[in-house]
Amino acid sequence: MTIKRLEQQIQFIIEIDKLKQIVRQTYLTDASRRENSVEHSWHLAVMAMVLAEHANDSDIDMIRVIKMVLVHDIVEIDAGDTFLYDDEHSESKIDRELAAADRLFSLLPADQAEIFRNLWDEFEARETKEAKFAFALDHLQPMLHNVITQGKAWQKHGIKKSQVIKKNSPMQEGSASLWDYISDLLDYSVEEGYLAE
Amino acid sequence: MTIKRLEQQIQFIIEIDKLKQIVRQTYLTDASRRENSVEHSWHLAVMAMVLAEHANDSDIDMIRVIKMVLVHDIVEIDAGDTFLYDDEHSESKIDRELAAADRLFSLLPADQAEIFRNLWDEFEARETKEAKFAFALDHLQPMLHNVITQGKAWQKHGIKKSQVIKKNSPMQEGSASLWDYISDLLDYSVEEGYLAE
Repeated sequence: MTIKRLEQQIQFIIEIDKLKQIVRQTYLTDASRRENSVEHSWHLAVMAMVLAEHANDSDIDMIRVIKMVLVHDIVEIDAGDTFLYDDEHSESKIDRELAAADRLFSLLPADQAEIFRNLWDEFEARETKEAKFAFALDHLQPMLHNVITQGKAWQKHGIKKSQVIKKNSPMQEGSASLWDYISDLLDYSVEEGYLAE
Repeated sequence: MTIKRLEQQIQFIIEIDKLKQIVRQTYLTDASRRENSVEHSWHLAVMAMVLAEHANDSDIDMIRVIKMVLVHDIVEIDAGDTFLYDDEHSESKIDRELAAADRLFSLLPADQAEIFRNLWDEFEARETKEAKFAFALDHLQPMLHNVITQGKAWQKHGIKKSQVIKKNSPMQEGSASLWDYISDLLDYSVEEGYLAE
């Protein structure tokens, strides 16, 4: 163990503190304020521990899902959070996030930089069953918060049910049962006037 | 899979959102505001991924450490955050946290309630090598933030070096090398006037 290796690790640990300042569009469940990307990431990690049994594949590696959701938003330190329904900025999102991944993960010692980069790449590619389930959690959580806050973020941005379905229905690839569950809550949200038809 | 089981799980997931409102004494590294217990927990989980090699035991189960730090503060939803140097409230902490653990984890289906409770009990007992390392991370992070913010929380509460050493040196049981590293930074903090001798 060299001091240099530990110092690189500590530098990364200090740098990622900035993710606590990246505010998302999603409101806390009491609607008091918007949450940040660290709060979102922690929530997904605990959700993975609780909801793993709802993945389409019963032999899912839940640990890999947890690691993926813990690191999936670190690139936002440089790239910012892109609102799911913001199609204009979504186009430039990939380039911004790739540059961010290059800079941020390379703060770590090379072997760990590769591990973190692989987790992020896997999440983004959404090809493995773990990445598909991580995507499902990443999309379930903001919808849940919207239902509980009577559609606060949906209404603020004038989001319609058709948009919610288009952007979020791919979560079926990770968990058909969680999609079914939230679909019923989307219907309920339209009935209650939280979400525009 | 019954709907009732999923609804219990979702109820727990919604309840733990409240941990985002539990503010700690530690400041973010840019000193702009104090962090909350969810932000702290996420930080520890990523630190576990990065720093596992510094555990005293080389065969540590890093996954168990990650799970422990993710759930270790959930009891604060009911019990509040107790400042490490607040000896008066530390006395009542155990009772408050036990009651919180009883209520909060029992929101989950019984099998998962037991898993979460076991993680929390293991963390609190600090007997396994994983719990000792989780303790080390839990104590390293606020000290790091204090060094970077020129002792902001230490100075606010008039904390002295002897107190810091007394409360944090047990982290040697989890990681002697991380204790050595932060010990040097404590000396540096005294030299710079961030921490009272």
